[in-house]
Amino acid sequence: MLRKGKSNCITDISGVSVGHVTLHHQIDKETTVCTGVTAILPHNRNVFRDKVHAGSAILNGYGKTTGLIQVNELGLIESPIMLTNTFSVGYVWQGTMEYMLKTTEEIGDTASSINIVVGECNDSYLNSARYPAISPVHAIEAIQTASTSPVEEGAIGAGKGMVCFGYKGGVGTASRIVEDQNEQYHIGCLIVSNYGKREDAQFASWPTIELDTPDGSIMMIIATDAPLYDRQLNRIAKRCAAGLGRTGSHLDNGSGDIAIAFSTAHTYHQNKQSMKASLTYLRDEHPIMNQLFQAVTEIIEEAVVRSLKTAVTTVGRKGRIIERAPLV
Amino acid sequence: MLRKGKSNCITDISGVSVGHVTLHHQIDKETTVCTGVTAILPHNRNVFRDKVHAGSAILNGYGKTTGLIQVNELGLIESPIMLTNTFSVGYVWQGTMEYMLKTTEEIGDTASSINIVVGECNDSYLNSARYPAISPVHAIEAIQTASTSPVEEGAIGAGKGMVCFGYKGGVGTASRIVEDQNEQYHIGCLIVSNYGKREDAQFASWPTIELDTPDGSIMMIIATDAPLYDRQLNRIAKRCAAGLGRTGSHLDNGSGDIAIAFSTAHTYHQNKQSMKASLTYLRDEHPIMNQLFQAVTEIIEEAVVRSLKTAVTTVGRKGRIIERAPLV
Amino acid sequence: MLRKGKSNCITDISGVSVGHVTLHHQIDKETTVCTGVTAILPHNRNVFRDKVHAGSAILNGYGKTTGLIQVNELGLIESPIMLTNTFSVGYVWQGTMEYMLKTTEEIGDTASSINIVVGECNDSYLNSARYPAISPVHAIEAIQTASTSPVEEGAIGAGKGMVCFGYKGGVGTASRIVEDQNEQYHIGCLIVSNYGKREDAQFASWPTIELDTPDGSIMMIIATDAPLYDRQLNRIAKRCAAGLGRTGSHLDNGSGDIAIAFSTAHTYHQNKQSMKASLTYLRDEHPIMNQLFQAVTEIIEEAVVRSLKTAVTTVGRKGRIIERAPLV
Amino acid sequence: MLRKGKSNCITDISGVSVGHVTLHHQIDKETTVCTGVTAILPHNRNVFRDKVHAGSAILNGYGKTTGLIQVNELGLIESPIMLTNTFSVGYVWQGTMEYMLKTTEEIGDTASSINIVVGECNDSYLNSARYPAISPVHAIEAIQTASTSPVEEGAIGAGKGMVCFGYKGGVGTASRIVEDQNEQYHIGCLIVSNYGKREDAQFASWPTIELDTPDGSIMMIIATDAPLYDRQLNRIAKRCAAGLGRTGSHLDNGSGDIAIAFSTAHTYHQNKQSMKASLTYLRDEHPIMNQLFQAVTEIIEEAVVRSLKTAVTTVGRKGRIIERAPLV
Repeated sequence: MLRKGKSNCITDISGVSVGHVTLHHQIDKETTVCTGVTAILPHNRNVFRDKVHAGSAILNGYGKTTGLIQVNELGLIESPIMLTNTFSVGYVWQGTMEYMLKTTEEIGDTASSINIVVGECNDSYLNSARYPAISPVHAIEAIQTASTSPVEEGAIGAGKGMVCFGYKGGVGTASRIVEDQNEQYHIGCLIVSNYGKREDAQFASWPTIELDTPDGSIMMIIATDAPLYDRQLNRIAKRCAAGLGRTGSHLDNGSGDIAIAFSTAHTYHQNKQSMKASLTYLRDEHPIMNQLFQAVTEIIEEAVVRSLKTAVTTVGRKGRIIERAPLV
Repeated sequence: MLRKGKSNCITDISGVSVGHVTLHHQIDKETTVCTGVTAILPHNRNVFRDKVHAGSAILNGYGKTTGLIQVNELGLIESPIMLTNTFSVGYVWQGTMEYMLKTTEEIGDTASSINIVVGECNDSYLNSARYPAISPVHAIEAIQTASTSPVEEGAIGAGKGMVCFGYKGGVGTASRIVEDQNEQYHIGCLIVSNYGKREDAQFASWPTIELDTPDGSIMMIIATDAPLYDRQLNRIAKRCAAGLGRTGSHLDNGSGDIAIAFSTAHTYHQNKQSMKASLTYLRDEHPIMNQLFQAVTEIIEEAVVRSLKTAVTTVGRKGRIIERAPLV
Repeated sequence: MLRKGKSNCITDISGVSVGHVTLHHQIDKETTVCTGVTAILPHNRNVFRDKVHAGSAILNGYGKTTGLIQVNELGLIESPIMLTNTFSVGYVWQGTMEYMLKTTEEIGDTASSINIVVGECNDSYLNSARYPAISPVHAIEAIQTASTSPVEEGAIGAGKGMVCFGYKGGVGTASRIVEDQNEQYHIGCLIVSNYGKREDAQFASWPTIELDTPDGSIMMIIATDAPLYDRQLNRIAKRCAAGLGRTGSHLDNGSGDIAIAFSTAHTYHQNKQSMKASLTYLRDEHPIMNQLFQAVTEIIEEAVVRSLKTAVTTVGRKGRIIERAPLV
Repeated sequence: MLRKGKSNCITDISGVSVGHVTLHHQIDKETTVCTGVTAILPHNRNVFRDKVHAGSAILNGYGKTTGLIQVNELGLIESPIMLTNTFSVGYVWQGTMEYMLKTTEEIGDTASSINIVVGECNDSYLNSARYPAISPVHAIEAIQTASTSPVEEGAIGAGKGMVCFGYKGGVGTASRIVEDQNEQYHIGCLIVSNYGKREDAQFASWPTIELDTPDGSIMMIIATDAPLYDRQLNRIAKRCAAGLGRTGSHLDNGSGDIAIAFSTAHTYHQNKQSMKASLTYLRDEHPIMNQLFQAVTEIIEEAVVRSLKTAVTTVGRKGRIIERAPLV
């Protein structure tokens, strides 16, 4: 196993911040709001003006993540990365748009458009997902409260209503340090775990139970300060499948298993004046690249386990109770 | 050239309907709303319950279209296909979600989630795109007013504020009939044209002008009653590049050139009971497949020209005027 | 864990046959031939005339596999699937072509071309790969000797010179049965294992050793009698990443990790007369699909372990010795 | 139209060389050899040791091109780019391998493997493709005779037996200059044209004839000295579809329409010592990128027309005659 980062968190990558907005209240006998929004910011500047190199991998595409078409074309992320429940993608998209318009007067005026990235998992077992609890302001609030402190995990933010291996899932994080004699880099992830049946878990031995949860999903956001460009970040994102496999996932049909990776090593300035840009990047065949691949595998596995360990027993719609996993 | 459909419209494909909502009004001296929403419905039943086989092609991915990850994974479309301006994707997504939830009580309850498809072009030359004129109700209205009549074209619906080859662009449509001695099929498209410089046009000889429009985009929706499945519909969508090339496009950097194709020949019922489904489909190597490919090329080219011919001179934000193209 | 197939072999899928040609001899003091060819035939008829539905997944593309462009476009395999060493892909391609031309007079005459699928791993640690030991006849021989009997595993055929986790790797296989109350299907794999460092293994606890092997590769061929079409077989192939992750792989940079999946449930006849074909296929959301995904994960993991258990200590070029893994 | 390069050839890109081997002879009454090999070398040094950044686009995947899996993964080309007939891909692959092994002692010894790129079109209307006329030595000869002089076009090299729009097709080339006030770059292509029916042509008005040629193919190789990296070269390759569309192609089912693009601006040295590499590249949103996209569209269209103009009436197998197109 590789060495863990200082706080074993995605915020070990310098500049990365995370914000959560969590909603949990009863509307009526039938309707319980148990959901939220999580925002991940690559740095503390305007992300549209200072874009980051990014890649992604659709491990299983039963998902509604927005923005990856343009990430794939241009290799850049230019908005906060937002996570929420499946039914609120539009409002979170619109709230993030509103935030970016307010803070960036040139978008839609002298500059062209902005590409908003929103990922989601389906929390409709615990959350009354048909009830439109999340509105654009929640997205703005998640962005505005983002902090570089160690990430709060478990039943919080976008993870509030999630279920993983039949126990309470949610937000998890982990990080690693990769290094050789000259250089040291950090790589971390934030995941929202919402997949799996009890008997699938590889890290614990749990009996089968009948629980009519949807197949679920897992969103996986990877941040690194290693200098990598889009093609390489696509490769990083793809390795999440190996980590998921170790937890016991077999990428079920109804699971949106989507990974997004970005590097903070360079930013790409929104500035039409210059004709060229420059990149320094790790050579793919250097051994440190395999360390990064190994790190991805390890942090995805660990973040899933941590999302279970930190989540608390939660009561949701129709009085349904999802218990905390019996993990020490 | 292949034989044209009865109305030379996407609605020549039996069951397909189109609805437009158009907004055009002055807010203040600086702010003009000149935009809209267009909805394309594959049939007149509930699209979630009776999904259609679908494919897509990202010809240039500078675009914000939602929903294609799942279309690609499952080969199905299960919502109306919505078109709007770049800055309103979230509200149109949310309005479409609201409509589908209202008409389909099982979504997010006993059934799992729904995948919403929204495409966009950037109309910010004529439309004050930073002003949030479009709200979820406009999406619902576009769906509810959809009709199988011949499509209204030009500066209408999502095409209201678009600019193409420096002239007024917008909605265009066209259709063809493909046939052999035994069978006859229809294929049609609806496009929103918003790309190109005057000197690029291949179908007219226009002098260069300086016009500071963004690179633009073109959304292309293809419908057919030919029995094709997802892989084949991806192939259909890909052929739009050849049609675009003929108009003079070279798929500019900032243009979101995205094609979505669906077949109405079968529907895939949302019904967990049965284990299997059946498909009858055209053999790829049958000559009628090349006729379909030819048809795509022809209808994309023709629909672009028609979007120009039908659009009217339009005054937008900051008093900007975009003239109707001098085409007979 | 799912129920194993009768022989726990890819040949549990009715009609699938496997042939090996193994070469092991000394040329001179510096040069040792330690390599081979393995052929997998979907059925005992002419594969060009009776094609099978197929899909693939490039888990890591440091590989030279041929034929997948067309498999991806048409969703069909029309030749035996051949495996060999990296440096002999051309000769095995040409031998397979020669075999298909001899047995199929219409190819290149009245029918058009044929698409040949050849996969490879790099056995240059034990095999003098620069020495051209494999010639087209070896490919033909592997095809002609293919048998539906339980597969011989370990240091045989294309697996002869492979190294896995620093121990002797090679050919492995496994199979599972998936079922509900009405139906039963089989799914099996044949892999050639040639990747990993000792300390990566998850199924054993081995100390690190220094061994200057290249990053390696794994080729994974999946066969099933479940009725699946190309898009679904792409999904099947993609799940191999989860199985690999369980063994300890993190899909290293220099590893060609490539999966190819085919279904024997239907064949697609090379026959220009008819306009249409029909398919019955499993609904993606039926629980048996998740069983298939689980099965892939299990058989990949098991086949890797079996390739190690069955392989014998082997002496290769420059007197290098790779030992059998200490697994019971 | 953009300004043409000095010789309007792919060899206008400094360092790029092209070699042809052409075979045309009668074997017996039934068998005529009418085929060849063309090699494109990015520079005059060892391509394995000094790799070039590269991308590709599969416009229609009815093709057997090898090597693109690894080009896609690593963004590099490390061998000459070879073109030949569909049935000889294996021998050309093997001959190129042999050449690279001879000139690069470290491959398969201290360095790992090499990735060979071979493209093809089906010349079986004029060439007795079942007869194995091409052997590995022809590939070596094409590489060794490559020259930076203006390219010979028409019925030569890999173009010898090709048929395009029912007339004699073959090798074509063209180039353009893109520039702003500070910088000037060159972009050129070499194509092998082998597709289309007479009535499809957009640049001439030819009557329909019945000619039982297979759907054909077009291989398109793009070279540029503009500093672009893999993602951007994928974009360049994709624009070939627009150029093809202008000629009249609709990317027919049986046509392998494949584009490969490389940049000579940087080379990537095979050298395990350093951890990092550097890139300077054109910003995607700089107007010169759209000039490059326009240039691709223009040179593909022009190269197809030139392949027709330069090809001569050719007699092939079974006495079949394909005439030179009546173009001035």
